[in-house]
Order: sequence, then C-alpha cells, then structure tokens
Amino acid sequence: MSQPQGDTAGTAADVLEDLRGHLPEECLITDPTRLAAYDCDGLAAYRVQPALVVLTDTPEYVRRAVQACAAHRVPFVARGSGTGLSGGALPHADGVLLVTSRLRTLHEISAADQRAVVDPGVINLQVSKAANPEGYYFAPDPSSQQICSIGGNVAENSGGAHCLKYGFTANHVLALDVVTPEGEEVTLGTRAPDAPGYDLVGAFVGSEGTLGVATGVTVRLVRLPQEVRTILAGFEDTDQAGAATSAIIASGIVPAAIEIMDALAIEAAEAAVSCGYPEGAGAVLVVELDGPAQEVAHEFDAVEQICHTEGCFELRVATDAADRAAIWKGRKSAFAAVGRISPDYIVQDGVVPRTALPQVLRRMTEISAEKGVRVANVFHAGDGNLHPLVLFDGSVEGETERAEEVSGAILDLCLEHGGSITGEHGVGADKAKHMPKMFTADDLDTQQMVRCAFDPDGIANPGKVYPTPRLCGERPGRHTGPHPLQAQGLAEIF
Amino acid sequence: MSQPQGDTAGTAADVLEDLRGHLPEECLITDPTRLAAYDCDGLAAYRVQPALVVLTDTPEYVRRAVQACAAHRVPFVARGSGTGLSGGALPHADGVLLVTSRLRTLHEISAADQRAVVDPGVINLQVSKAANPEGYYFAPDPSSQQICSIGGNVAENSGGAHCLKYGFTANHVLALDVVTPEGEEVTLGTRAPDAPGYDLVGAFVGSEGTLGVATGVTVRLVRLPQEVRTILAGFEDTDQAGAATSAIIASGIVPAAIEIMDALAIEAAEAAVSCGYPEGAGAVLVVELDGPAQEVAHEFDAVEQICHTEGCFELRVATDAADRAAIWKGRKSAFAAVGRISPDYIVQDGVVPRTALPQVLRRMTEISAEKGVRVANVFHAGDGNLHPLVLFDGSVEGETERAEEVSGAILDLCLEHGGSITGEHGVGADKAKHMPKMFTADDLDTQQMVRCAFDPDGIANPGKVYPTPRLCGERPGRHTGPHPLQAQGLAEIF
Repeated sequence: MSQPQGDTAGTAADVLEDLRGHLPEECLITDPTRLAAYDCDGLAAYRVQPALVVLTDTPEYVRRAVQACAAHRVPFVARGSGTGLSGGALPHADGVLLVTSRLRTLHEISAADQRAVVDPGVINLQVSKAANPEGYYFAPDPSSQQICSIGGNVAENSGGAHCLKYGFTANHVLALDVVTPEGEEVTLGTRAPDAPGYDLVGAFVGSEGTLGVATGVTVRLVRLPQEVRTILAGFEDTDQAGAATSAIIASGIVPAAIEIMDALAIEAAEAAVSCGYPEGAGAVLVVELDGPAQEVAHEFDAVEQICHTEGCFELRVATDAADRAAIWKGRKSAFAAVGRISPDYIVQDGVVPRTALPQVLRRMTEISAEKGVRVANVFHAGDGNLHPLVLFDGSVEGETERAEEVSGAILDLCLEHGGSITGEHGVGADKAKHMPKMFTADDLDTQQMVRCAFDPDGIANPGKVYPTPRLCGERPGRHTGPHPLQAQGLAEIF
Repeated sequence: MSQPQGDTAGTAADVLEDLRGHLPEECLITDPTRLAAYDCDGLAAYRVQPALVVLTDTPEYVRRAVQACAAHRVPFVARGSGTGLSGGALPHADGVLLVTSRLRTLHEISAADQRAVVDPGVINLQVSKAANPEGYYFAPDPSSQQICSIGGNVAENSGGAHCLKYGFTANHVLALDVVTPEGEEVTLGTRAPDAPGYDLVGAFVGSEGTLGVATGVTVRLVRLPQEVRTILAGFEDTDQAGAATSAIIASGIVPAAIEIMDALAIEAAEAAVSCGYPEGAGAVLVVELDGPAQEVAHEFDAVEQICHTEGCFELRVATDAADRAAIWKGRKSAFAAVGRISPDYIVQDGVVPRTALPQVLRRMTEISAEKGVRVANVFHAGDGNLHPLVLFDGSVEGETERAEEVSGAILDLCLEHGGSITGEHGVGADKAKHMPKMFTADDLDTQQMVRCAFDPDGIANPGKVYPTPRLCGERPGRHTGPHPLQAQGLAEIF
C-alpha cells in the first residue's frame, strides 16, 4: 500500500491505486458517465460527482477501501440504496463513494432468539418477508421500505408510520460489525441479551456515516400481531383530525400508527392513485390498531367513539390485508403524488410535541397564505412528526427561494414550540446549518469529541450533520495541524 | 484557582484548597472518621476511604468540584445513594468523592408532555409518587427504589422486575445536564421529541460515572395501567416454572414482570418476612399483567391455562394493591432474606438468552453440588436475567474462595450460552476483569476511545468498567505522556 506523503492528504487516485489488484476492476468506477449516476441520493437538489465509486461485494472490500482512504486521508461517503432525504449520502467531490448495496446476504433469521443477522445492503422489506413465515417481522418501516437498505436505516435511524408504537431503528439494532474511519474492524454491542460498557450501538445508529461503515447488522424481530385493524376517518379539517389524535392518545391507547393528510395532500393522492378517500374531506385520519384480537376490538370501539365525537363524517374499517393496503395506498404514495399537482416540492421533516400540533398547524397555514406558497401536510400525528410538502415551480423566478423560505420558517416554528429540526430523515447535508438553532456551541462540540475519537482526520462523510467541523487537534496537547476539511472546502457547496 | 505543576498531577489537598471559600465548610469532609462512612457502596466487599468527600448542594458545586479535580488531574468518583451492587461508586484512595444525594429538587412533573425534570439526587420512587396523582409513573424499578437515586440509575442503567415490558433506564431518559470530566457544562439529548446528532444520552446512561456527572435529568413518564393483576404460581421445581415462562412468552403475551424463586430462595423469604408462599413449592413464579382491563383479563386466562399445563399445583391472584404487595414482599426481600439462612452471600447478576434458561439452571445445580456451595436462585425469568445468591460462611476457611469460584463459574456459564456478565447491576469495580471474556481487545479499545474523548486525563471514576485503561495518548500525533492511572495503581486493590 502506498504511503501518504508526510502531512499532505492524498487523492482518490492514490486510493484507486491501492485497491487495484485487490478488488475486481468492475467494482472500481472512474468513468465520468457512470460516476454521474451516483451524484445524489434521494435529495436530488444537491448533486456532487464523486472522484471514485467502489462497489463492495464483501465486508473485506469495505475494510480495504476504508483503510486505503485512511492511509491517504481521502474523504469517503458510504451509500446503501441512496433513498435518504437529507443528502446524507451526497458524495464528496474529491472523495470515494462506498456503495454497500451488493452486500445482500441474510445470514440468520431466528424466531427463537427473535433476531436476524443481515448484510447492510439487504432491503428493509426483505427482512420482514424472510421472518414472516416464522411469525415475525422487522418493525421500522420507512415509506421507502421496498427499496431502502438496512445499512441506510442504521445510518439515518430511520422511522416510519409504525414507529409511534414500535420505536425507531435505534430500538431494533442489537449489534453492529463496523469498519471505523481508521480502518479497524470492531463489533459494537453484542448478540447477548445485555451489553455492558458504553452503548455505542445507540451512538452509531443515526450517526449518518460519520463514525464508520456498518458491514453486519443484528436486528431484533417483532412478533406479528394477532390482529390488525386500519381505520380511515374523514374530517372537515385538520383541527378536528388533530383533536381526535390527541383524544385517542389521551385515552391511553397506543395505536401502531396515526397519520393525518390534509385536503391538498388528499387531492394529490387522488390524482395519482385514485385512493377513493371520503369525498369532501378536509382531512383524513388513518389509525392502525394491532395486537391480541380482544384488545384490538376494545380499542377499536374507543377510537370509533372518539372520531365521531370529534366530528368525523365518514369512517371505514379494513380488517384484511387487501383493504388495509387500499387505505395505506393513498398515504404511502403521498410524497410522490404531489408531483401531480406541483412541478417541484420540498419534503420537510420537523417534529413538535404532540400538545403543540394545533397551534403549529394553524400558524403553518398562515405562513403559507402570507407567502403565497402552497403547503400540503402529510404527517405522523401520533408522535408530532410533520412532513409538510412545500410546493413550487422552479421555472418561475423567485418561487424556489420563496419555497425555501417557507420550508425554513416551518422548521423555526417547530423549534419555537420545543420541537426538533428532523424527525426521521436526518440532518445530512441539508440541515447541518440548522443544528446551532437546536444545540449550543458547547453541546455540539461535545458531540464532535466523539466524532474526533473515531475519525481524527475527519474523512468519514465530512460536511454532514455538523455545520462547523470540530478541529480534532484543537485541544492542547492533542493531535494538531490543519484540518483536512479546511483545505477541501466541502462546506462551500451548501 | 491554583494551577497544576507542569505534568505532575496534584492531590486532593489541592482540590480542597481550591474549593474552600466557594463551598460551605460543612460540604467538605476530610475528617477520617466521617470519611469512613463513605468507604463503600452497596458492594461492601470492596472498601476504599476517599481522600476528600464533597457534598454538592447545587449543580454549581458539582461543576466547581469537577473543575478543581480537572485542574489538578485528581481522580473523582460520583455517588448518589450508594446502593449500587458492583462497586461503581467505590471511592479512589487519592481522589475526591462527589456526593449528589442532596440535589433533590423535582423541577417539573408534566402529564401533558409525559416527562419529569429532576435533580440527580432525587429518589427513584419519589418521581412516581409525584407523578401518580396525574396518572403517570417512572417505570424503571430497581429493588432499591425506595432509596436509590435517579443519578445512580442513570450511571448504572438500572433495571428492575418491570423492565421486561418497559425497558431499562436508558429507555426512559430524554435529556441530561452533565458536567464533563474537563469541567464543561453540556446538555446531552433534548427535551424536544427527537434529537439529531449522536445519541450521547444513550452512551452516557450506563457509563458508570466514567464520562462525567449528571446534574439534571429529564425522564419519560409512563401512564399508570388501567388494571394490574399479579399471579403467584407454585411449581414442583424450576424446570416447570421455566417451561411456564417460555410458554407465556411464546404465546405472545408480554407481562409487566415474570419472576422465579427457587426452593432455597423461598425458604429464606419465608424465614425473613413470612410471605406465605404455596407450601411445598420447589419454585414459585410471579407473573404481573398490566394494561387495559379487557386485555389483562384475556391474558390472565391464557397465563392461568399455561401454568396448569406446565404443572402448577397452586395459583393465587391479587387484583388490589394490598394483595399485590403481599405477593411481591417475598420476592423483593429475597436478597436481604438470604441473610437468615447464610452468614454471607454473593449476589451474582448474569444474563442468558431465555431459550438457554433450562440448561443453564440445570448446570448451575450441578456446579453447586460439585463444589458443595449452596446457590439460591431469584431471577427475572422473562428476560433471562439471573440473580443467583451464592451462600457461604466467611468465618470457615476456604468457603469465601469456593463461593467466589462458583460465582465466577456461573458467569462463565452465562457467557458460554451467549449471555452477558451483567444484566442490571453494572460492571463497576467488581466485573471489570470479566470484560475481556465478552469483548475483544479491539472492541474494548473502541469503547475507550469515547472515554478518552470525554476524559483525556483519565480522572473520572478510573479503574471501573475497563480492566486496562486505554492510554489516551497512545495514538500517534495525539496527547502523550504517562497515564495518570499508571502511577496511582488503583487496579491493585481488585
């Protein structure tokens, strides 16, 4: 392996030279037209073509590639299926993109131990499909679950509609095999029932590729519920639907999911997939109950009663898989469907305490009216996770800027009400600039002490999550010298 | 503030000098007879008298004390109520013991936001008592909950009988105000519904005082269940009780708690508190069901049926608080009760996958017979968390050693079956030596990179958790020089 020249960082060409002969040529992509296919993830507003793409067919390839990057202090970005919505897998112009989507082996599905051991490139839904015959499934269910990878779920701590009851990815990962930014292979957590020492699995899940690359993931499997009932309730407006949500939660019921769509989101979904939601609804509420049959029956009665009390004018119930799929079809297609009613849109992802939902929704309507920018609302009401879709036409001068202004104002609104800048889509490239609104400089600095511990040279997904990278050498007596990011200026593109 | 002399670490006397004038004299304890009262925590087998005790009445005192320790590179150990069972709050002979038990304010109890904000010295049960009138409680319930502090729960990631359904302390902490080992005040996590960035709350909870001292804790509150039923079932032996446990879990029911006591543990409990458990029982199973009344009724029928199928000869049910307390009385007093049947005992804390319970219990009986050492078993059967009580008489030559041998053999047995060296009591001073049995050197080293990031001088609870402290300066280009622990040789006492 060629060595870096003193303190000078090398280039992706040095990494390529190191890897040739160890990895098949077809795994090393340098042709610009092929590189262009990897220039963005699910957030296509940001595009950067990487200098080199490495397709990793084995964990060994991941280790070799990271070690080569570490030896030359060349930045790397890991990418699974590339469905992320915050630009977490946006490549680095002078760096290496490590694609893990070909690591697709399901190594173990164990009902007795309620766990699965899988490669990072395995698709989210495949885990559930493999576990279903045993009576189990993998609970986190992002809308992209048919194509997103477990490795990406780990990086972003992905959620989904059913995370209200079952928790996020962090609640379902037991152990991780990881290649650290310095190229070491380590295991975080344990397959044993309890892990003493620091909970580094928790810190790694959601670290958005800044602490290393996962090459093996052990997840918890959850028992399939005995019964599932999905309720679709039509209301006059989101205030009523929101009041029903609050009343359901206040009654002590924890549904598997509670989703709200407003009139504009319903209009888009109807245009795209003809989901046949209650006619004239200003808002629909989707409530899914699961568990033992008797419990579901009992909770259903309560939910039905609450919906009617809060003004529901039409209520449908699905108990079989086909009817449930029909109800979910509108909700799950909502993001893409918005393309039917607007040439461009921004998917925002903020969270507010559930108790603040009514005020926040009302103020959002005001902002939308003030700025003349339409906002469709589709959200996980049960946990206060809003997904406003800010609509605009990029070909009309000034609309893009106004849409971005509204999108930013919505985040500020969330923060004013004690909320968060992201619920489940991550910080990535897109929201790093908002982090100082949520954390003090000292708090951010403390988080980055961990980053520096894992990645002293700042080569693992630089520029993501934290707006201003901590200079790992800045503490007296520690490693000093210019930070590699300072020269490379990735932050400029944001 | 006096400055440290170059690279030489100072002494507790230097810390005392710094604090005089800033803290009231009554908060600074140096009198040897008073220091003796702090020489151990709940694991009295290890005793070390600290050089200085600081009673911290305010978070400001904590910050000042830690800053003084940092300035002089003097080790410090934080202590709440001192009920820990792994020696996590064992003092350092040349160091400072920071006692947080006088920080006892409940700042906020909010039903609408389902959270409480409390000082670290607040007693676990006080949080529930304050939240009960609002219909909520704090779920983690270690047996010591009447006296243990929230700060100690955070340090040890404490569990309890009801953690099977509700999770450990880590699942219930939302945010922490922390003084880092370098004396900085930072907030980890957020009171907002979601925190982007690294999950340092997860890493801090269970870090056993090695990453700093918590001065404020925001915890999640859980809704009181509509109904609670507690079942006491008598069986011929632990095999039957274990089979009933497996069958209950396999049926899809998640009870709030499932506990098993064997004949020896029952004998001890009867001698101590006359709990009146089923006569002639070789094992009792305590199963607690909670939730909506209809769900509990439904689950109760299933549990009753399973118990009878698996050989239960007597089954009692408690539905009111007094009857429930009577059933729990035997279980909760079991550790102390063992004192009635043996002059000395070791409380072990291991975990095995639930599926391995029968083999492990059988082998434990064999080990006990082979070595002639009695072992009473009281355990959280639902999650495979064993608490074998190894009985001995310290006044009989060789018995202590034989008991320690059996206790160690039980841990090895847990590891052989894919288990863990601790379920809820922590690693502390007691089990640091066992960590390499569970983790590779590289895995331990990775965990300690985080320790070094927070605590480069190794002054926060040194000697605990990790058998061989990582030398924080060992990475090329980083802070170098002799590690302060090398000179102080704390490890020798273990």
